[in-house]
Amino acid sequence: MKEKIIKTSIELFDEKGFKETSIQEIVETIGVTKGTFYYYYNSKEELLKDICISYIEELLKQQKQILENPNTDCITKLHEIVYMLITNIKSQRRSARIFFREMRHLNDQHLKEIKAKRNQFRKNYQKLIEIGMEKQQFKNHLPPDMLTFAILGITNWSYYWFHPEGEVSEEQLAKIYVDFILNGIQFVDQ
Amino acid sequence: MKEKIIKTSIELFDEKGFKETSIQEIVETIGVTKGTFYYYYNSKEELLKDICISYIEELLKQQKQILENPNTDCITKLHEIVYMLITNIKSQRRSARIFFREMRHLNDQHLKEIKAKRNQFRKNYQKLIEIGMEKQQFKNHLPPDMLTFAILGITNWSYYWFHPEGEVSEEQLAKIYVDFILNGIQFVDQ
Repeated sequence: MKEKIIKTSIELFDEKGFKETSIQEIVETIGVTKGTFYYYYNSKEELLKDICISYIEELLKQQKQILENPNTDCITKLHEIVYMLITNIKSQRRSARIFFREMRHLNDQHLKEIKAKRNQFRKNYQKLIEIGMEKQQFKNHLPPDMLTFAILGITNWSYYWFHPEGEVSEEQLAKIYVDFILNGIQFVDQ
Repeated sequence: MKEKIIKTSIELFDEKGFKETSIQEIVETIGVTKGTFYYYYNSKEELLKDICISYIEELLKQQKQILENPNTDCITKLHEIVYMLITNIKSQRRSARIFFREMRHLNDQHLKEIKAKRNQFRKNYQKLIEIGMEKQQFKNHLPPDMLTFAILGITNWSYYWFHPEGEVSEEQLAKIYVDFILNGIQFVDQ
């Protein structure tokens, strides 16, 4: 039932917005009573926190697996994180949009908790860039924190426009983006 | 007065959200009556449309000036657009966030109008990439539409985290990002 509440709320929050969706609507859509809702959650805000936490924790878990693999170099790890973020669009687009758009409706303590995890994801990414710089797989003349924001921006933005069912597949997009991130667009006469 | 309504609404919409802000709150904050509001706008939705249109039209205007300059090459134009988008954060961060976050509250006709202008901005950007490819200033093995989304993602994302008053200046960030876009991060042994 908890899963059903989460799934339905994600759809409603994404379509109508968090503030505009009432607990009444959530339980009516599922066909249960408000009592059922309050058995699992004390408030709508607590449910929103649950959605945001699940979203970011899943990303952190996948990122950890990639980063801790002893058999891949920094370039492969970068490719795997880019691909992971793009493939997550299909299953997680709604959660991602709620995460970015509705986070401001969380209370201060929950917001702090979520932001800490979001920052952790970014810092792990930045660490990969820094290790790649030390190992001379990546150039080291640009600040790794600014680069990390740029690289994150590329995939985060794709949640707003990319359709995995469209002409370009997830694999293709990941390849294009990794090529771009590694080599840039300037023509070099060789 | 119209300017004052717009300015106040941008602040309220950004802080509280479009749906959560009533016309009553807007006029109370300014210290006028609802009649004043309805002299300029038929509805809150119409005001939102005005904010979104002004935001995107200003960007299109600045982009046009850059693109039509006969004395700059594609790389310079790219740098100027990146810099323009970053410097706009200081003055336009709130409008930008409303644009991205609240657009879905516009009615179908207004949404269509705004999306057409937003797509125009992207297509102009893509055209620059394509011209650069033809002139061999940019490599031409990656699809220009996907590249444009990536390049836009880098600067669009900066609206969520960049503080122009912080350690990195707008000029520095634009330089870092143009270097990254042109050359990528992979270490090349020369």
